[in-house]
Amino acid sequence: MTAHVQVGSKKWLLSKLLAAIGYAPVRIVLWDGTQSVPPRIDPIGTVFIKDWRCLLRLAIDPELYLGEEFSGGRIEIQGDLPEMLAAVSSAACGRRRRAWFPRLVSHWLEWTQNNTLGGSRRNIHRHYDIGTDFYKLWLDSQLVYTCAYFTHPSETLEGAQIAKMNHVCRKVQLQPGDTVVEAGCGWGALALHMAKCYGARVKAFNISHEQIVYARERAVREGLSGQVEFVEDDYRNITGKFDVFMSVGMLEHVGLGHYDELGEIIQRCLKVTGRGFLHFIGRNRPMRFSPWIRRRIFPGAYPPSLRQSLEVFEAHDLSVLDVENLRLHYAQTLKHWLDRFERSSDKVAEMLGPSFVRTWRLYLAGSTAAFRVGTLQLFQIFFAPAANHQVPWTRAHQYSDNRAGRQEQKWIPAMS
Amino acid sequence: MTAHVQVGSKKWLLSKLLAAIGYAPVRIVLWDGTQSVPPRIDPIGTVFIKDWRCLLRLAIDPELYLGEEFSGGRIEIQGDLPEMLAAVSSAACGRRRRAWFPRLVSHWLEWTQNNTLGGSRRNIHRHYDIGTDFYKLWLDSQLVYTCAYFTHPSETLEGAQIAKMNHVCRKVQLQPGDTVVEAGCGWGALALHMAKCYGARVKAFNISHEQIVYARERAVREGLSGQVEFVEDDYRNITGKFDVFMSVGMLEHVGLGHYDELGEIIQRCLKVTGRGFLHFIGRNRPMRFSPWIRRRIFPGAYPPSLRQSLEVFEAHDLSVLDVENLRLHYAQTLKHWLDRFERSSDKVAEMLGPSFVRTWRLYLAGSTAAFRVGTLQLFQIFFAPAANHQVPWTRAHQYSDNRAGRQEQKWIPAMS
Repeated sequence: MTAHVQVGSKKWLLSKLLAAIGYAPVRIVLWDGTQSVPPRIDPIGTVFIKDWRCLLRLAIDPELYLGEEFSGGRIEIQGDLPEMLAAVSSAACGRRRRAWFPRLVSHWLEWTQNNTLGGSRRNIHRHYDIGTDFYKLWLDSQLVYTCAYFTHPSETLEGAQIAKMNHVCRKVQLQPGDTVVEAGCGWGALALHMAKCYGARVKAFNISHEQIVYARERAVREGLSGQVEFVEDDYRNITGKFDVFMSVGMLEHVGLGHYDELGEIIQRCLKVTGRGFLHFIGRNRPMRFSPWIRRRIFPGAYPPSLRQSLEVFEAHDLSVLDVENLRLHYAQTLKHWLDRFERSSDKVAEMLGPSFVRTWRLYLAGSTAAFRVGTLQLFQIFFAPAANHQVPWTRAHQYSDNRAGRQEQKWIPAMS
Repeated sequence: MTAHVQVGSKKWLLSKLLAAIGYAPVRIVLWDGTQSVPPRIDPIGTVFIKDWRCLLRLAIDPELYLGEEFSGGRIEIQGDLPEMLAAVSSAACGRRRRAWFPRLVSHWLEWTQNNTLGGSRRNIHRHYDIGTDFYKLWLDSQLVYTCAYFTHPSETLEGAQIAKMNHVCRKVQLQPGDTVVEAGCGWGALALHMAKCYGARVKAFNISHEQIVYARERAVREGLSGQVEFVEDDYRNITGKFDVFMSVGMLEHVGLGHYDELGEIIQRCLKVTGRGFLHFIGRNRPMRFSPWIRRRIFPGAYPPSLRQSLEVFEAHDLSVLDVENLRLHYAQTLKHWLDRFERSSDKVAEMLGPSFVRTWRLYLAGSTAAFRVGTLQLFQIFFAPAANHQVPWTRAHQYSDNRAGRQEQKWIPAMS
């Protein structure tokens, strides 16, 4: 290439990239010092693009390649990462390209990551079995890896995770002696909380081996193994009848084609007087996770729109009683996780390498941005069999202790 | 017919009828004294069938003909009507017949009652323009003709309607000076409440002439006509930008084919910082109103499943923030309405004739039963434009005054 052609193609690729990110107010600096500065506005940060191939790929499809290039260290970003990603996400909204290659990648991922019994096990293993020691570096002390509930934005993460577990338990009006089946139990925090603080008897399912091992150990350590059984198995193998079906953060991994199956299982395992709860990442309208997220972070995952999620209930005589959208709480939760992750990034790099750190930095920052701008939502759905007429009269009980502060320890013994 | 054949056909028709009502525990007595008594259980009431034709029709399709025959006085019922209808509804659940004739009637109704601009006007006129004097006989003093909110089941109807209006206003966090557009405003109670108690400026749409006339008079009488404008027009003609979109009890009349249109109007009329509210009768799963209800009570009406109702939001950048199901509150509201209606039934008969009384008795009792057993649901959806990030942090504000009892008068001045 002559220098002239090089300059021309560079400019052209840069202009394609700028269009794709919706002319978000960021400064772009290329490997040779070429710059693009937003007109009439201060840039909120700078993106350094380190070589030709990286620029070319970003121009083709930033959504597909940003992750790969960032993880590989061929992109560097100066500025507040969640803020910049939020700005790009807001600006690029609705400009999503539907070129044949990204579409093909997307379909290929869907096909290879289908959530069959074996597929789910592989998909879950890749994310949740990275190592408990890694997650301990940046989650709260109980390892609750789902959206917390901040009674006030200034709440601590530890407090907000306890508040979330209580919020959930209050929604289903958990009573001493209630039998609970939990589908997707993570490291067991909620199962143990329901047993310890509400006197429930819990059977908790999970296909992540690492998590189940940890949860079982914790149950023994806390003297709760008589009350909580951790089962290393798929939700599709749940049998028996329960007072409460509980699932926090699993629907994302169920996959769109399996909602009817999940509904059937819920219907089958709930007593007539039963109650159910589903907490999941969703959307305002149907849209897959980006191919990068599905390839590197959450294989097989799909965040349904609220409408899509209701397929779980509609054909299975289940009545939706209460839906709450907590997306700002997830933005806040992720802010805490990201801060903690950054503080431990050297340790993570030692454990899993510098490219892993960059990958997870982008995942956590991108998720923060998504919940902040609203491309992702967090839905909590409380439901019951249609024939259950003993449902709560109002939702006042969910808030009856909030005013006195979170005096959960004082409040809980009165329940058990 | 010989006596023998007559006895045979009667028995056969009776057996068809019993199967159609799912062998619900009711005694059936025919015109000649022939009886069918439920085995091994005390009947909860008695159905008197007064002639051959009536028995024949009920055997063909009880859902289609019960109303006609009951209104015509050819069926009489002894016992608690809502309780009996609830028992039949529960027992017959899932046994709904799909014969060609009822299906044809259903499609014919759908076709002739389509909610075009003109169609809606005709449909609404038939129900809501029966006469305000009639509705005054059995609604609360403010003529709120939608589900009330009982902070406790023993609440009075008047109190529960005020509590409902406050519940709604709290959900949208109504502030002094907020501009509100209300789609379908009935006799204006909520519009006036929002103005008087929350300091909002309201533009309220309704195509029922009688209701608009009454609402305007009330606004003048209460000195609120500067703050509330009642517009006799269709929701599809709403223009302008507002802080709040409010609709209580209209979606049922919009019709399934018009949700996208409604969503477009909501999207267009809400400011970015706006909030919206939809309150409507719905279902756990898609099912039309019975042909009788559509023919005699609510022409053109359809109670969507929650999933169907979300079509309003999904394509229009609206984010669902909160859904509450208040079906038991509607059963309670209807119990009050039916009790008051029965106490005024002589006056109603004088006004509108004895057949009208029977028709409305069945409609009110049938609706009570439907909300009690769960064939109908009542959904309240709070939503906002997807780009509105100033949404409530929690829902605690909805309940912050409930504990002190409904001291609304004390609480409200502090808001305005």
